[in-house]
Amino acid sequence: MSVETKAPVVVLVRPQLGENIGKAARAMLNFGLTEMRLVAPRDGWPNPAAGPAASGADVVLERAQVFETTAEAVADCANVYATTVRKRGVTKEVVTPEQAAQEVATQPGRSAFLFGPERSGLETADVALARKILTVPINPEFGSLNLAQAVILCAYEWSKRQALVQPTVEDILPPAPQEELEGLIIQMEEALDQRGYFRPAARAEASRLTMRNVLTRPGWNHLEVRTMRGIMRYLVKPPRQSDS
Amino acid sequence: MSVETKAPVVVLVRPQLGENIGKAARAMLNFGLTEMRLVAPRDGWPNPAAGPAASGADVVLERAQVFETTAEAVADCANVYATTVRKRGVTKEVVTPEQAAQEVATQPGRSAFLFGPERSGLETADVALARKILTVPINPEFGSLNLAQAVILCAYEWSKRQALVQPTVEDILPPAPQEELEGLIIQMEEALDQRGYFRPAARAEASRLTMRNVLTRPGWNHLEVRTMRGIMRYLVKPPRQSDS
Repeated sequence: MSVETKAPVVVLVRPQLGENIGKAARAMLNFGLTEMRLVAPRDGWPNPAAGPAASGADVVLERAQVFETTAEAVADCANVYATTVRKRGVTKEVVTPEQAAQEVATQPGRSAFLFGPERSGLETADVALARKILTVPINPEFGSLNLAQAVILCAYEWSKRQALVQPTVEDILPPAPQEELEGLIIQMEEALDQRGYFRPAARAEASRLTMRNVLTRPGWNHLEVRTMRGIMRYLVKPPRQSDS
Repeated sequence: MSVETKAPVVVLVRPQLGENIGKAARAMLNFGLTEMRLVAPRDGWPNPAAGPAASGADVVLERAQVFETTAEAVADCANVYATTVRKRGVTKEVVTPEQAAQEVATQPGRSAFLFGPERSGLETADVALARKILTVPINPEFGSLNLAQAVILCAYEWSKRQALVQPTVEDILPPAPQEELEGLIIQMEEALDQRGYFRPAARAEASRLTMRNVLTRPGWNHLEVRTMRGIMRYLVKPPRQSDS
């Protein structure tokens, strides 16, 4: 099954504000989800308040399908998750967004995430359609997650599992070869030696080691070593007498 | 070190709308973060639009501290992350929210997440203060993450680690607080300035940034910073005439 068909469907059950539908669409598309279904949106559909709030995620809104009941909206889905902010008194397995994302990516059949109305959340009849409960672990003393935030956390976790989200490939430069670093260390040692830094002789060895450790730790790349060598050349010059 | 002190500081740099500051506070508190710092908020502070948007997270707003500059806001932080939605042309390591959360939980010293203004994001000078870049891997064809969403993803990842992370015993010293590093940078800038390093004026700013990045990268602890400051004091002396 391709990645495309493994992507979960986002089902907004009886959403109230068009603005929140738009924000949910934006949250979805940020993390590559495009299939939104709406169950009996309070103010009908399309809703003119949705578009501006979607900030460009119009494709999600344009393709959104509308259903009269939650059961119809998930009729083709094998794995339905009912999202709740707090655990409810139902005897179903409760998973985190992370666990759900893992399951969605690996289990056969289409998956759907159900999100309830902004004010009240899913009703018992909606939750009854779900195989599992999806709960975002939240601060027990302050749980105040809005619809779009709940959607974005689920979409984000899903996208983390996807191949399209390569961890950012880093083209940062490797540390400079040791001989370049050595050049900097020798340059600095010579300058310091000429200025009495390594006196008295009894502590010279320890001072040299300390200095070497400080300069080795950074893992500077060759550009950075070159910058430091340039800085060194200037530091040992006498200061200018005037600013002219 | 207790969990309390391991929680990252959330720094909003030049935030524009009070409403977004409130939403960020709500996002933080949902996942247990309480320390917000504001750098030069556009409309001053307190801002009457913040409270209603915080939906009850008033404690975060009440405790928020205001600073004039980003440098002051992170002066006591050892590990500063600059959040950017897209990769920037800077030679710093880029981490995901997940990786950053792992690091924050295990590395010594306080950590801070910098978030830029809504419209423009962090400026180069802000990014230069950071040890690493934090980037949310996002749909390459639609990246439209608002401030509160960026904050909530970082806070969420942090909170996920809290249950898992055993307090790692760290006997290495944390990076020096930012203000100590700043002392070294200023000392070096002054010495270089007196010696014409920042000429011509047209490239002075770029040279300052390069120097700052080279010195920020190492994550030197306070002993190492002290060593470098001692080295600096010797380098700018005139060399001794003889070896006697």
